[in-house]
Amino acid sequence: MGLPPDDVLETHWVRAQHESADPVFLESMRGGFSGVVGILRHGIGPTIGLRFDIDALELKESNDSSHRPAAEGFASIHENVCHACGHDGHAAIGLGMASMLSELQSEIRGTIKLIFQPAEEGVRGARSMVAAGVLDDVDLLLGHHLVTGCAIGEIFPGMGGYAATRKLDVTFHGAPAHAGGYPEGGHNALLAASNAVLNLYALPRHRSGFTRINVGKLAAGSGRNVIPAQATLVAEVRGETTQLCDSMYERAMAIIESCAAMYGCTSSVRDMGAAGTAESDEPLARRVQEIASRLPQVTSHKMEKMGGSEDFTEMMTRVQANGGQVTNIGIGADFHGIRYQDSNRELVLPAHTGVYDIDERALPFAVQLLSTIVFDLMKYPAIT
Amino acid sequence: MGLPPDDVLETHWVRAQHESADPVFLESMRGGFSGVVGILRHGIGPTIGLRFDIDALELKESNDSSHRPAAEGFASIHENVCHACGHDGHAAIGLGMASMLSELQSEIRGTIKLIFQPAEEGVRGARSMVAAGVLDDVDLLLGHHLVTGCAIGEIFPGMGGYAATRKLDVTFHGAPAHAGGYPEGGHNALLAASNAVLNLYALPRHRSGFTRINVGKLAAGSGRNVIPAQATLVAEVRGETTQLCDSMYERAMAIIESCAAMYGCTSSVRDMGAAGTAESDEPLARRVQEIASRLPQVTSHKMEKMGGSEDFTEMMTRVQANGGQVTNIGIGADFHGIRYQDSNRELVLPAHTGVYDIDERALPFAVQLLSTIVFDLMKYPAIT
Amino acid sequence: MGLPPDDVLETHWVRAQHESADPVFLESMRGGFSGVVGILRHGIGPTIGLRFDIDALELKESNDSSHRPAAEGFASIHENVCHACGHDGHAAIGLGMASMLSELQSEIRGTIKLIFQPAEEGVRGARSMVAAGVLDDVDLLLGHHLVTGCAIGEIFPGMGGYAATRKLDVTFHGAPAHAGGYPEGGHNALLAASNAVLNLYALPRHRSGFTRINVGKLAAGSGRNVIPAQATLVAEVRGETTQLCDSMYERAMAIIESCAAMYGCTSSVRDMGAAGTAESDEPLARRVQEIASRLPQVTSHKMEKMGGSEDFTEMMTRVQANGGQVTNIGIGADFHGIRYQDSNRELVLPAHTGVYDIDERALPFAVQLLSTIVFDLMKYPAIT
Amino acid sequence: MGLPPDDVLETHWVRAQHESADPVFLESMRGGFSGVVGILRHGIGPTIGLRFDIDALELKESNDSSHRPAAEGFASIHENVCHACGHDGHAAIGLGMASMLSELQSEIRGTIKLIFQPAEEGVRGARSMVAAGVLDDVDLLLGHHLVTGCAIGEIFPGMGGYAATRKLDVTFHGAPAHAGGYPEGGHNALLAASNAVLNLYALPRHRSGFTRINVGKLAAGSGRNVIPAQATLVAEVRGETTQLCDSMYERAMAIIESCAAMYGCTSSVRDMGAAGTAESDEPLARRVQEIASRLPQVTSHKMEKMGGSEDFTEMMTRVQANGGQVTNIGIGADFHGIRYQDSNRELVLPAHTGVYDIDERALPFAVQLLSTIVFDLMKYPAIT
Repeated sequence: MGLPPDDVLETHWVRAQHESADPVFLESMRGGFSGVVGILRHGIGPTIGLRFDIDALELKESNDSSHRPAAEGFASIHENVCHACGHDGHAAIGLGMASMLSELQSEIRGTIKLIFQPAEEGVRGARSMVAAGVLDDVDLLLGHHLVTGCAIGEIFPGMGGYAATRKLDVTFHGAPAHAGGYPEGGHNALLAASNAVLNLYALPRHRSGFTRINVGKLAAGSGRNVIPAQATLVAEVRGETTQLCDSMYERAMAIIESCAAMYGCTSSVRDMGAAGTAESDEPLARRVQEIASRLPQVTSHKMEKMGGSEDFTEMMTRVQANGGQVTNIGIGADFHGIRYQDSNRELVLPAHTGVYDIDERALPFAVQLLSTIVFDLMKYPAIT
Repeated sequence: MGLPPDDVLETHWVRAQHESADPVFLESMRGGFSGVVGILRHGIGPTIGLRFDIDALELKESNDSSHRPAAEGFASIHENVCHACGHDGHAAIGLGMASMLSELQSEIRGTIKLIFQPAEEGVRGARSMVAAGVLDDVDLLLGHHLVTGCAIGEIFPGMGGYAATRKLDVTFHGAPAHAGGYPEGGHNALLAASNAVLNLYALPRHRSGFTRINVGKLAAGSGRNVIPAQATLVAEVRGETTQLCDSMYERAMAIIESCAAMYGCTSSVRDMGAAGTAESDEPLARRVQEIASRLPQVTSHKMEKMGGSEDFTEMMTRVQANGGQVTNIGIGADFHGIRYQDSNRELVLPAHTGVYDIDERALPFAVQLLSTIVFDLMKYPAIT
Repeated sequence: MGLPPDDVLETHWVRAQHESADPVFLESMRGGFSGVVGILRHGIGPTIGLRFDIDALELKESNDSSHRPAAEGFASIHENVCHACGHDGHAAIGLGMASMLSELQSEIRGTIKLIFQPAEEGVRGARSMVAAGVLDDVDLLLGHHLVTGCAIGEIFPGMGGYAATRKLDVTFHGAPAHAGGYPEGGHNALLAASNAVLNLYALPRHRSGFTRINVGKLAAGSGRNVIPAQATLVAEVRGETTQLCDSMYERAMAIIESCAAMYGCTSSVRDMGAAGTAESDEPLARRVQEIASRLPQVTSHKMEKMGGSEDFTEMMTRVQANGGQVTNIGIGADFHGIRYQDSNRELVLPAHTGVYDIDERALPFAVQLLSTIVFDLMKYPAIT
Repeated sequence: MGLPPDDVLETHWVRAQHESADPVFLESMRGGFSGVVGILRHGIGPTIGLRFDIDALELKESNDSSHRPAAEGFASIHENVCHACGHDGHAAIGLGMASMLSELQSEIRGTIKLIFQPAEEGVRGARSMVAAGVLDDVDLLLGHHLVTGCAIGEIFPGMGGYAATRKLDVTFHGAPAHAGGYPEGGHNALLAASNAVLNLYALPRHRSGFTRINVGKLAAGSGRNVIPAQATLVAEVRGETTQLCDSMYERAMAIIESCAAMYGCTSSVRDMGAAGTAESDEPLARRVQEIASRLPQVTSHKMEKMGGSEDFTEMMTRVQANGGQVTNIGIGADFHGIRYQDSNRELVLPAHTGVYDIDERALPFAVQLLSTIVFDLMKYPAIT
């Protein structure tokens, strides 16, 4: 879902080649297969999955000297692409886990799947890995996310409260005409789209919980004096539950189709992302908290309303459907105390901005935390 | 009005340099001064202006073998720029006039101004030349336009009926916010713009004559999950008279400002072109017809409703205000009988398409016609 | 078309009874049959139709002492109903014609049909009489209208330029819901209707001639806290030609159906009036002018652009389709020089206002004029 | 706020006279003063207020034989007015309290205020009584509401969760014009209103809690062929908190003013009702529960999300601001097990429908419950 066009995939694949990526791996990644699953198997025991989302964002990383990665020379080298949500940290933690677990392979009792997922941003990648069956044999699934604004050692077992979301690109297809000489001609795709924008925002609230709608972008038309023949909306709906989100999506479809019909246009919708809601299993979250409490200087907290969305829920839902248990874990990685205020004087965490930064000391801590949990779960796989 | 940004002007100036344009002329054209006035003066007599519009269109010229300029190797060499409305022919006629009149300079009685005008497309260039005073001393002004679909020898003295038009780019300035986490934040410029689109098209008709409104392009927003903070409309209004056009413009302003205010946005409007209405002076048109009738195989016709707009009207209005007389002349230049039908099965002349073509034999005919007229007017400048 | 509900028809029928209307006629008018055709036949000759529209308007007649009918005691005795467009004059002329022609019956050569048409206001009645075959045998058809602002003796043979029009009542049917407790419930008919209003006004202009659209009334909803389940629009479209008007009507239908569908509503459309365009036959208009010129103090004028609509066109079209000739005649009936200005400082004739008045001396003049024409046409029925 | 016009007030006052209302009371109620406060004072003790809302609804009561009040002859005798929300029961309970407390006056220790409030429907009446100072000396305030669907003996101390609400009537004032002959004239109030409807529904959701918006009615225009000069919306906003509700109101104002300005109209807003949020004091609610538990067959439950709005909150807020405590109490009054399903197959309580009914045995129970609470509170006025 939301796979870039072939030429974009190829361009980036060639770039990876030029940047000396390992040809053996590269070959199997051609065509957009950028997810990886590492499997370690030894002895008899449960299958434990760990998920690491590894993708970046289309953002320009700050090159200001106050931005530590810039000052110390490890900022992104690719223009307009950077890790502004900590997924580079997640990738590093995953590789740390792989390295440590390989060395301790003889102590493993069961199967460990290290799941490196692409395309979490835009909530597109989890669904593919679920569809590929990666989660089908997982008994216990652990996800995690670095959390800025919290000190190293602070953790949030069971972190959740993600909204369900569906992303869609909508194109209205009309027909052009000379607007001055032939104003009644053509089919005005911009009028269809403008109606859609207004009526999408006017979709009613729902008594059962919160919903969201946004049309983030609109591009329409070709020339000043031409009836616009095409218009494309970039939109998303959200809901407090999957059901609410799906209900918004269905009503949005009715709006879109009617607005197209109103001006003799047609519409096409491309699904660009989707994630439902899911919550951590309370017993596993408690177990994680109990295990973590044995480590020095660890404190556990609740964090139930994250806002935003996260497609780890897609993996959670699959494992839970098979009778397994899952938990997500927030891991403090304070980025040195920087705080920002938006125009409404609200404190904001600068995730998804070019100045996002984490304290790298959170990485070995996370490896220690997750490996402690994994070995404990292998030893006592019963969760109560 | 509607001058491109400095860097675009410079890029094209440098390109002209690389293409071996005469450095003497180039120097004085830097900064967008692409209009030229050639003045020939000899003896005592009236000041006669001839206007040649010389600009091209942002269109890709056909490279199909059925398109004669492509087949014979004289199509545009610049991607997405071509003369699809005959202005290259007008430029050639102007140069032909300059060449012939220079040779016959001793026979001139009065002043002849050859006015090569840029930026007729978008109706932006005439106004600048008028403002620069180029028309202030002109007693008699002749404009012309090649007309496809009519044979060589067919002419249209007094061709007119152009609509008044005003072109405007409108930007709505709002404020962004995270649409999922902070839906009530920001100021939604896309909602402002969508309302404007709908209500601009809903501007009422007028009993006094036809009006037109079009929003040809809309670009808004930055990201799927961000309340759109900016939206830009590319629009134009027209009217059967300058007054009707101005009335549409004023009502459009009220719509735009109110739609911005509705969402706490501001709006800015950039005027991108303007031309009023003007009609040829009947006595001069009749005189032209009478002079032309002395040439072999010339037939004169009426063509009063051109639709579209033309900023030659700005020059006409200035000359008429000074007590001078003006006429526009259509000159047949049949492009070999090709005809197209649009989706409504209406015959369309393919002006402003990549397959537009003229019969070059119209060019020497036009030089002959115009020079005959000019010499006759110098000889008998009284128009009755 | 547009027939009032049965109970309204019955109420007015009973009122007529109470007001001592002739029981013989009353019986045959029950159920809304308020049109009358009087036929006089004698000798051999053409069939000549004369049309008199006899209906009134839902308007309160002025009771100001400056309003002559009020001052002299012959104003309307029914609240909110009055003849504010001269149709009472037309009825009187028709009765005068009937009286005079009856006395002169022996001089008749042919057939004279005096057609008293109801429901011209709202352009509903002519269609019914045409459908009933009343016009099928008419060779020559004369219509007329009193014209205020012009002196008695001024006439306008061939008066025309009526716009084609279609009137429609549109109801959107949704479903209610408690707006506070169940905001996502129901189907919002007011949202459907509001979209329709906006997009109906946004219907594009047409290059081939003028068009009009108006939504004159909207009534929707039942309670403040209830999702509106019903909304009714009262609208009309017009066009310079029947084709333009029909094109507007068709596009309006697409808007209406799509706006209903957008909110899960349905729509129903009730046609409330319709009249096409038609023009007088030039030969008959000239003949009328020629005959009229024999009367003392008569001057003929041209009046081609009436604006407004008139369903006499329906009758004209039927007679012309059968090879007959028709003409409409404007007859001056200056109402003593009163003139009004609207808010835009434009002079307006106060037709359709409570102070409309005619000079009754126009009535015997009109009878004289029309009977002179009729007898001349019977004598020399060939029109050239 | 929302007081009916003088003539409506007078009509109903005269009706009360005809129906033999006590002339002494009637005199002081003239002009809409339909609230009553009964005060009983004896000995030293707290001031305890009890609120009874006594108004009815504009609804037609069912006359079906299955509707017990109709079958047994005590249904409403006034067409289109009935008690469909139990306020007649509240009035009866209040009168029962007055009667019982009068008899036991010697046992009173303190002041008891029986507050009979008009105009709870539409949330208009409480504000007036608060403004009149009725609540200023109240230490402890008890409200209650009969609850259908729950058995007699079931009570809900602390019942709350009411949404804040503001009701508004909005009129757009434009100017008329003849739509066919003068389409550019006038100022289209219906276009202003249609834009307002769309954009009011499009007001954004809020991260801090639920909001609501509804436009329940729209009436606009005068005639099919007249540009609509006036349009009136009947609307309301709600919010989970008073702040959210006020924020919606403010944004609605911006929409309304801008939509008026867009079409050269003006707008006027009439506030028709308002109630904030307020919650019962937990200590007093617990105390009520404890007292009630001494009565036989009483069970207490929680009911925190009522949806809907209730202007008792205005009184609560005033008492709490003065340091007093308040609680609202739901009192089961099952209406014989009838249940209805709406079109979405949801169970609905038929409050605000013509078949609403209560079990009258709830009335003496309520008097017993409230008097027990009142005497206990007088005895032990300290609430902890």
